[in-house]
Amino acid sequence: VDEQFAKNRVEALSDGIFAIVLTLLVLELRVPHIDAPNSADELATALWDLMPKFVAWVISFVTVCVIYLNHHRLFSLLSRLDHSLFWRNANLLFWTTAIGFATALMGDYASNRLAVSFYGIVGALMALGFVLFRLRCQARPDDLLLPDVDRAGFRVGTRYSIVLGPIAYLVGAALAWVLPALAFAVYGGIALYFVFPHAVRNR
Amino acid sequence: VDEQFAKNRVEALSDGIFAIVLTLLVLELRVPHIDAPNSADELATALWDLMPKFVAWVISFVTVCVIYLNHHRLFSLLSRLDHSLFWRNANLLFWTTAIGFATALMGDYASNRLAVSFYGIVGALMALGFVLFRLRCQARPDDLLLPDVDRAGFRVGTRYSIVLGPIAYLVGAALAWVLPALAFAVYGGIALYFVFPHAVRNR
Amino acid sequence: VDEQFAKNRVEALSDGIFAIVLTLLVLELRVPHIDAPNSADELATALWDLMPKFVAWVISFVTVCVIYLNHHRLFSLLSRLDHSLFWRNANLLFWTTAIGFATALMGDYASNRLAVSFYGIVGALMALGFVLFRLRCQARPDDLLLPDVDRAGFRVGTRYSIVLGPIAYLVGAALAWVLPALAFAVYGGIALYFVFPHAVRNR
Amino acid sequence: VDEQFAKNRVEALSDGIFAIVLTLLVLELRVPHIDAPNSADELATALWDLMPKFVAWVISFVTVCVIYLNHHRLFSLLSRLDHSLFWRNANLLFWTTAIGFATALMGDYASNRLAVSFYGIVGALMALGFVLFRLRCQARPDDLLLPDVDRAGFRVGTRYSIVLGPIAYLVGAALAWVLPALAFAVYGGIALYFVFPHAVRNR
Repeated sequence: VDEQFAKNRVEALSDGIFAIVLTLLVLELRVPHIDAPNSADELATALWDLMPKFVAWVISFVTVCVIYLNHHRLFSLLSRLDHSLFWRNANLLFWTTAIGFATALMGDYASNRLAVSFYGIVGALMALGFVLFRLRCQARPDDLLLPDVDRAGFRVGTRYSIVLGPIAYLVGAALAWVLPALAFAVYGGIALYFVFPHAVRNR
Repeated sequence: VDEQFAKNRVEALSDGIFAIVLTLLVLELRVPHIDAPNSADELATALWDLMPKFVAWVISFVTVCVIYLNHHRLFSLLSRLDHSLFWRNANLLFWTTAIGFATALMGDYASNRLAVSFYGIVGALMALGFVLFRLRCQARPDDLLLPDVDRAGFRVGTRYSIVLGPIAYLVGAALAWVLPALAFAVYGGIALYFVFPHAVRNR
Repeated sequence: VDEQFAKNRVEALSDGIFAIVLTLLVLELRVPHIDAPNSADELATALWDLMPKFVAWVISFVTVCVIYLNHHRLFSLLSRLDHSLFWRNANLLFWTTAIGFATALMGDYASNRLAVSFYGIVGALMALGFVLFRLRCQARPDDLLLPDVDRAGFRVGTRYSIVLGPIAYLVGAALAWVLPALAFAVYGGIALYFVFPHAVRNR
Repeated sequence: VDEQFAKNRVEALSDGIFAIVLTLLVLELRVPHIDAPNSADELATALWDLMPKFVAWVISFVTVCVIYLNHHRLFSLLSRLDHSLFWRNANLLFWTTAIGFATALMGDYASNRLAVSFYGIVGALMALGFVLFRLRCQARPDDLLLPDVDRAGFRVGTRYSIVLGPIAYLVGAALAWVLPALAFAVYGGIALYFVFPHAVRNR
């Protein structure tokens, strides 16, 4: 008696949110105020001061592209969405929209251990969203996955997604208390890892 | 002589608006200003002060997901849109976009009875939008509903949607004048009710 | 040798812009600052002062819905888009995005004749965009319009769209210099006119 | 063993980003503050002072429409997307979202050589994104391009896209140090060039 979901409409909602999050990230890069409007030197200094925000922006842009890529791949394995998957997807989207706030916080206070750690916690909750989504799929594989999806491979992918998702982000969040730059490296590293094609095959 | 509407284009417009509203809700969570940029303690206090905004954000995120879900289900029952349904849908979208403003107002003034009550009034007008949409459908069922839609069940669903929609929100708006926290509980409760799958079946 | 345009992708771009414009209109309604955060009286006064912005918002929301409706109907008559129509559509979208700025200006300075007049000028340029789009279609009807579209009726619709579009908005813009409230009435009246179904049939 | 990408979902993500960038450009045109709210004269002066922002907005709006047009045409030549093209597309989208920031910077500091030059550098990086995308396509034409795409013509188009893209923008960026208005002319000229239909045929 489960409701039918139009997979393409939920994909459209998700893609819309990904597109907006990707575009709004740049809004944190506000035009700096300078006293001498025509001074190239003063503007250069002001733009240089934006560097932590710029780095945070690049990391988050790549991260949201990776989220899109994993979301895209995961949905291509589904035969249909049920009510539970709809809400697990909504949970994932919620934390994805929170990345914009975490990016702004980390960009504004790039040397504040809590701010940098906060980003990792939001990242971990987002990545946990993927894990929760996958667990539902593999609990009812015949109902939710397409017939030709390799069930054993899917379960292996879920285990990978725990290590390379919540655990890796929590490591970054912990390292922020040692040295914020280390956490930046971990967050950037997680995103970069998924840029290489073999990574996606393992998920 | 009624105009033909491409149902999928109106769905795309609606989904676009839902996606943007969901994403913009987080913009109300502005990065707090702190005097000592590297102080984790001061940032922790500043983030803690955002708690009412955070709660308002979560309630509204779930509420807009529920709106999406009900919209999705309602549109799946339609054979076509007529001019009147287009404008009833536009009315619903109008109040949905207003939820962002009401959320910001309630998040900023979480102990102000008017601010918390205002949220409920906007919610009631949004929910009334669903009722007005349904009334049109059931006034012309053979024209607007798909042949296999149970007409009697649809009318029962409309009655449910009056109680669980405008009336529930107005109860919340009234309780805000007794104790704002009670209204928060009602608004969150309405959203949570629709997270459970049986609720959607009854609509 | 004219390029082929995927009509559905241009529709998707346009619908995306309409959805974003409709949602961003509400952002002009900023949460007012009040000195006593728990005072319902002070908040009521502050919200009441937003009334001109609220009226401007409603007028613009209905106006953009009407733009969507006319756009939707016009595109349903096209067999294909050529390069010229792509850019005439882009021009229309440009002035549609400008409506947000004009709304904010009119909402902030509701008694300023220039501000209220400015809205009408932007509206006239947007409506002129529709006229320019239609003129291209009727200059090459066999190439651009679907075979079953009534050519004579289309040309009549273009004449209507001049009177009810640029001319009506310019009348409003002129009346703003007599009395701003009159212009509000004209702008609202233009939008309301198209809410009635017969109006769309004539376009 | 390359992953399959749903071309239409990547198009939808890209179109969503184009739509949002196009709409957000206008947000840089903030309503000016005037001391006498009812003074048409003061408002006229304040609006006139927005002229550089207005010019920057128009140039960027046309530029993003041209990006959309080139993107649209390029994707119509593809048989499928591979992992590398996905990321080259993401790189292109990244620089497209950066155009909003560059527009705001140039609009705020229209006489500042660095600000005007910065716009050209962002434009060059965006245009380089198209070149990198095309190079991948022509390195694996049988895998990525549709069978009826003229391979030699595609390679000619790539050479055009280097000259009319990164090189033209870098010329503008260099001219900004001579006279900012010259750079405005180059940036506007690049966009205008692609408004004429023959230009698109050559790409």
